[in-house]
Amino acid sequence: MQVHIPLKQVVDNSYSITIDSLKPVHFDTKVAIVTNPKVAGLHLAYLLSKITAKELYIITVPDGEEYKNQDSINIILESLFNHKFNRNSLLIAFGGGVIGDMTGYASSIYQRGIDFVQIPTTLLSQTDASVGGKTGMNNSYGKNLIGAFHQPKSVYIDSHFLSTLPEREFGAGVAEIVKMAVTFNKTFFNFLQTADLKDPIILQEAIKQAVQTKADVVAQDEKEKGLRAALNYGHTFGHVIENETKYKKYLHGEAVAIGMVMANNTSVKMGLMSEDEAKSIKDLLQKYSLPVSYEIEDINSFYETFFLDKKSSDSTITFILPLSIGGVKITDECDKELVLSVLKDFGIDS
Amino acid sequence: MQVHIPLKQVVDNSYSITIDSLKPVHFDTKVAIVTNPKVAGLHLAYLLSKITAKELYIITVPDGEEYKNQDSINIILESLFNHKFNRNSLLIAFGGGVIGDMTGYASSIYQRGIDFVQIPTTLLSQTDASVGGKTGMNNSYGKNLIGAFHQPKSVYIDSHFLSTLPEREFGAGVAEIVKMAVTFNKTFFNFLQTADLKDPIILQEAIKQAVQTKADVVAQDEKEKGLRAALNYGHTFGHVIENETKYKKYLHGEAVAIGMVMANNTSVKMGLMSEDEAKSIKDLLQKYSLPVSYEIEDINSFYETFFLDKKSSDSTITFILPLSIGGVKITDECDKELVLSVLKDFGIDS
Repeated sequence: MQVHIPLKQVVDNSYSITIDSLKPVHFDTKVAIVTNPKVAGLHLAYLLSKITAKELYIITVPDGEEYKNQDSINIILESLFNHKFNRNSLLIAFGGGVIGDMTGYASSIYQRGIDFVQIPTTLLSQTDASVGGKTGMNNSYGKNLIGAFHQPKSVYIDSHFLSTLPEREFGAGVAEIVKMAVTFNKTFFNFLQTADLKDPIILQEAIKQAVQTKADVVAQDEKEKGLRAALNYGHTFGHVIENETKYKKYLHGEAVAIGMVMANNTSVKMGLMSEDEAKSIKDLLQKYSLPVSYEIEDINSFYETFFLDKKSSDSTITFILPLSIGGVKITDECDKELVLSVLKDFGIDS
Repeated sequence: MQVHIPLKQVVDNSYSITIDSLKPVHFDTKVAIVTNPKVAGLHLAYLLSKITAKELYIITVPDGEEYKNQDSINIILESLFNHKFNRNSLLIAFGGGVIGDMTGYASSIYQRGIDFVQIPTTLLSQTDASVGGKTGMNNSYGKNLIGAFHQPKSVYIDSHFLSTLPEREFGAGVAEIVKMAVTFNKTFFNFLQTADLKDPIILQEAIKQAVQTKADVVAQDEKEKGLRAALNYGHTFGHVIENETKYKKYLHGEAVAIGMVMANNTSVKMGLMSEDEAKSIKDLLQKYSLPVSYEIEDINSFYETFFLDKKSSDSTITFILPLSIGGVKITDECDKELVLSVLKDFGIDS
């Protein structure tokens, strides 16, 4: 005999991203702001001048991608248990992508899931991690290999926080903005070619365009079963670069910049993109001092590392290849020899 | 400015529970059967005579509630990473509730979520944990405090596995069956009063009724925002008993049995249930040798422990109180003195 469990339901995970100066807000529940000492030192006073709560706690975890791990998650969870947080309590992620991913992940597993709000403080997290609900942590096997899809209740993007952002981190954010434009929006790409993102008004417009582009994609494919994979343009290669350099040499956006150049070269070799288009993307990346080259020591080892990517299966690798500018092809049928020839151009002997 | 992220979607987490002898099945993907040495020794040969896969792995974790923790989750995850499981791979939970909860939780966080199938081997997990998608693990703060809602792809209930089930574990399963009947189905309760669950045919019918009852509730309230909380009848008290006895003295179903008696006494004191009805439930529990009494050392400490329950908030405790038999009242407005007087009847000096 069979019992059917009908769980076809309308689930509303909708939320809003507010791009503006933070307005005062009060939460009538227990709230924990999760941040790191660096962000806290620079901006916590400003945040606390805006946010109040029934009970407000600050949880700090060490700063840096190398601390995006179980130990930091445990720091967050222990604090929630000690302060008897319950299912009505709220977490606020206050920092860059690492803080956002870990806070989201902790809120997804604490008592089977509580709400969280994002207040991203870097350009990268404002444009990319703020949309889509991907949360997680790294482990010894790789990046973001443990995690959950867990949407925030709301996101507040305040460019006030970017005033203290180091140059390299600014560039890393630009890389993801370029990614959105190349894959989905040629008009936006043309805008970026002439825009000066150091101008706060223009930057805010670019953030909005990037967020809107990503929102459109995620709304169509929340759990990354299809189209959303296109946002991994630059990431298939980038993840291997990060893995090989142990997440130390490059910021995530920098690795993605190199990865986009590699993906472009693959597209060019496959006749999907012209050399001029590939060059115009490279030029745009270089305008913001992003790296566009990388010395591959062993192209076969580089190729094998593709298979650890979450987007790959046992025997295939999913490549995200730009079709000209403003379009994208998701394929797991990329000729191995062709990919190796692309890698060879980055080889240490080339 | 604001960007709206529209994530109102129709999500289909529906699945089927098959109550029958296992039929041969082949999975064209990587599969890991997660089990413990005891279940493996008794029943793995039988399972392997039914299930084949493209690649099949066996992961064993230590047997027992005290191992339902991060260490065991890590054993499962490490094995998946070592065998390069990807998003198309599948886990099979093969064991009781502990195995089911941990396998479900591991599958919910591995690469942000992969599929899992449940093949429960105890009466408790067949009737209760098999429906509803609650997954999780314990930690030093309490039971199931870390976890996720993650629905299985399918569940297979084969009474073959119950042939080796110890008497006490059988009773613990009966407790959850009684819970379903008291809260939602008086006809089912009357059936149970005269039924001999040791008869395999009658047992299968009782399992089906229990599963169907729970399925109806979960279908209306997957994430436990309302009605589903009724299934925690006996659990508000039971969790404190488990906590106080450090999960060693009682099986989960046994603690729930005592908890139901406590909830019934509360209902009687509030005029929600007659003494005769409370007695008929107690009699049914005792028919299957379930414990119905517990010596509370300190009623105030017992009361304070309620607040750690996931169903409680900062200042209120949610009680699930039977309304006669076949009905239930979910309330967080239970007079503290009245509850203390119920606890006092179980007090060490009473």
